[in-house]
Amino acid sequence: MTSVPKHLKSGSVCPPLQENQLRLYSMRFCPYVQRAKLVLAAKNIPYEEINVNLVEKPEWYLEKNAPGQVPSLEWIESASKETRFVPESLVVSDYLDEIYPEVRLHPTDSYLKAQQRVLVERFNNVLGPFYKALRSQGKEGVEDLNKNLETYESALNDTYFGGSQAAMIDYMLWPWFERLPLLNDVGYHFNADGQFPKLAAWIHAMEENENVKKVKVPMELTKKFMQGYMQGKPEYDFE
Amino acid sequence: MTSVPKHLKSGSVCPPLQENQLRLYSMRFCPYVQRAKLVLAAKNIPYEEINVNLVEKPEWYLEKNAPGQVPSLEWIESASKETRFVPESLVVSDYLDEIYPEVRLHPTDSYLKAQQRVLVERFNNVLGPFYKALRSQGKEGVEDLNKNLETYESALNDTYFGGSQAAMIDYMLWPWFERLPLLNDVGYHFNADGQFPKLAAWIHAMEENENVKKVKVPMELTKKFMQGYMQGKPEYDFE
Repeated sequence: MTSVPKHLKSGSVCPPLQENQLRLYSMRFCPYVQRAKLVLAAKNIPYEEINVNLVEKPEWYLEKNAPGQVPSLEWIESASKETRFVPESLVVSDYLDEIYPEVRLHPTDSYLKAQQRVLVERFNNVLGPFYKALRSQGKEGVEDLNKNLETYESALNDTYFGGSQAAMIDYMLWPWFERLPLLNDVGYHFNADGQFPKLAAWIHAMEENENVKKVKVPMELTKKFMQGYMQGKPEYDFE
Repeated sequence: MTSVPKHLKSGSVCPPLQENQLRLYSMRFCPYVQRAKLVLAAKNIPYEEINVNLVEKPEWYLEKNAPGQVPSLEWIESASKETRFVPESLVVSDYLDEIYPEVRLHPTDSYLKAQQRVLVERFNNVLGPFYKALRSQGKEGVEDLNKNLETYESALNDTYFGGSQAAMIDYMLWPWFERLPLLNDVGYHFNADGQFPKLAAWIHAMEENENVKKVKVPMELTKKFMQGYMQGKPEYDFE
């Protein structure tokens, strides 16, 4: 197992950016970063990963990206030699889909693409209750979580949301489905009443997806991270 | 002045959808709807407007669009005769830009497009304080509003955010800039200290834009609407 580079924090120096090297600013346990990594994996794009401590944020990172969030991309444009920077998980993912079109993750049909984008934009309706359930130890959010997952159950009419192959929408939704077992500890069991048969089959298919496997962080580490995170003291470096 | 069709509410019947007629579900005072209308105007796309009462929402509208928000588009696909539906202001706007490419509102350069999309996505940082200031009668939100507007002041390096001509980003941001005078009544005066000279010039340029003029709702009516809205009793039909 390759060692994971430490998360750089306040007081650190930004590692020099190399030409012809795409850089991803990352945090090992961030589901938004995972979106970008899934896209990078699906397109087989090589990149350098710089881990950022999101509590003690490096000054040099805040200068690049005032909100201090990850993921973001950075590279030196080969023609102009200018440094380029793109933040925000959905913008990063769509940007990569446009400039590396060999493996297309968005449908070429505009209507289909719009339908899928609506499902991604409205996924906040699932994320809100998901985090609420986690924070409240399962006292709140659980009903809303199940209710809002119904939209995704009924939207799923093939093996993947994107059709017969995993596509952009699948990778944009996946990180939180991978984290659903976190809720077991607070008494929420996904599909306990068998009400989400299609989503359960999709989760199974996604777990077998090679890009998902490549990007996966061991669940025991994610749990360890989340314990600290929930107490407002996230630890980033375990190994 | 053409009369404005009444906002349909609970108990109403959905007007039959015609072939070869794009329909916009709308609410006269909604800034998100205004985004879609600006795009429709910029592209000179004819459409039928169906106004929806957002308090007593029509049952037939909730069936089409469970969250009950506007804007949304609906039409009959000419080849398949199937009914198509697209909600969400940004999805609607981007969809229109893709299928009516004669007047392109997004830059063709992917990097520029990504940069502009980040500014649109992060505009919630302005909207939050904007509504907070309105709701608190100017007691809260004002400082944050000015702070977050700085990002837009410094991003503006031409007449428009989109360059020498108004483009997608300009139309996506505009509806709330048009509504800034609403804050005068709660003691907030945009650019009072002259700290936003570029934004002020942009506002002036946008006010002269023919699409902005075409879509504009008289400020006295917007004020009247917002008074009701702030008391939780919005009125939709004034004329």
